[in-house]
Amino acid sequence: MEIFFSKDIDGNVVRLGAEESAHCVRVLRHRAGDDIYVIDGEGTLMRCRLIGDSPKGAEAEIEERTPDWGGHPYELTLAVCPTKNNDRYAWFAEKAAEVGVDEIVPVIGDHSERKVFKTERLERILLSAAKQSLKGKVPEVREPLGVKEFIKSCKDSDALKLIAHCMEGERISVKEALERFDGSSYIILIGPEGDFSLEEVALAVDCGFLPVHLGESRLRTETAAVTAAEAVYFKYL
Amino acid sequence: MEIFFSKDIDGNVVRLGAEESAHCVRVLRHRAGDDIYVIDGEGTLMRCRLIGDSPKGAEAEIEERTPDWGGHPYELTLAVCPTKNNDRYAWFAEKAAEVGVDEIVPVIGDHSERKVFKTERLERILLSAAKQSLKGKVPEVREPLGVKEFIKSCKDSDALKLIAHCMEGERISVKEALERFDGSSYIILIGPEGDFSLEEVALAVDCGFLPVHLGESRLRTETAAVTAAEAVYFKYL
Repeated sequence: MEIFFSKDIDGNVVRLGAEESAHCVRVLRHRAGDDIYVIDGEGTLMRCRLIGDSPKGAEAEIEERTPDWGGHPYELTLAVCPTKNNDRYAWFAEKAAEVGVDEIVPVIGDHSERKVFKTERLERILLSAAKQSLKGKVPEVREPLGVKEFIKSCKDSDALKLIAHCMEGERISVKEALERFDGSSYIILIGPEGDFSLEEVALAVDCGFLPVHLGESRLRTETAAVTAAEAVYFKYL
Repeated sequence: MEIFFSKDIDGNVVRLGAEESAHCVRVLRHRAGDDIYVIDGEGTLMRCRLIGDSPKGAEAEIEERTPDWGGHPYELTLAVCPTKNNDRYAWFAEKAAEVGVDEIVPVIGDHSERKVFKTERLERILLSAAKQSLKGKVPEVREPLGVKEFIKSCKDSDALKLIAHCMEGERISVKEALERFDGSSYIILIGPEGDFSLEEVALAVDCGFLPVHLGESRLRTETAAVTAAEAVYFKYL
């Protein structure tokens, strides 16, 4: 099923951007009168009829809206330290989008090997994954920030806030932490290859984060992040 | 932690193959007298002392054995149809190895786009993942075979046999199927992008497979396979 994307909605008319229009008209050869499907990235699927087939700016009239298309009954933010290899982070983002995630936050930790991170590639991957998975909502990527900065920004949130680390100390399993929680908003923090620092964990605990482990297996950062997404997904299975 | 691999064990002496020896002696510059760690691929970690440092065939004396190193308390076979893009299957294999899997079987289905599959690259990836995850057992890859052939070969197995498909019809969630089962051996069958055929599902049911779904999300083949590995992993979390 081909899905287009646009946030350019004016009343009952949606306009596709340059890239989407070129794909729609030149590559897929749609013409005025054709039915096309467009997501708005916020959750809604619009069944539309093409009224203008310019390859630079196609226009369509919205005939039917399906809200919360392909949505999931929870809000999940995954704050994950960038991996040394960018492809691994991209893989994680795509898989998290398929399974279900609302926001991805690249966080730079004390032990992070990669301290610079470009979000543009991730945005393209997340849009593509949303279309491919038939979801109306495209997960957001936030601009990178420090782990400590991120932790403090969550202090007043009512979400279940979890920090996954591999050091000794009080931790429960992510599964147990999720099961005990009555709400449906989750923030899960996944550290770099070198793990979080003691200071980062202490700050997290002070700001209401619960230290958790992800089981016995020693997981790469991107695998841990997908495992966290799966853990929340399974709670609702 | 550097880990070497060898199945060439003679009494209390382990010999590294050409590639592992070159890495050990030339790259990492180990010399006779050094302690090195070697896995046998079957589950055992051996702490050894290097006695011969030839870069073509290093030898070491086993000083201590740790059986079932990094092992998991279940047996999991993932029979997964090859994806059109080989990299995606490689990602799945690596992630399944990190989380926990014993055997990967590439199965060619009625709707498979890819009917030819080379296992060599997968073997390298699985060995590398086992070392990186600190596991003594390297998951095995079987030679590709047809879905129907594979299904029939499982007929007499006592394992919990699950076939994940996306068609209408009686299916329970993979989570429920896993929870109901008392044993610890699992065989999970994951289909191609075009799903299994009705005949394949019918044959599977005849041979004791339970049709399951993997939740609401529409997952790519490799994502479905990792999700299945995670589902079993979470049962034991």
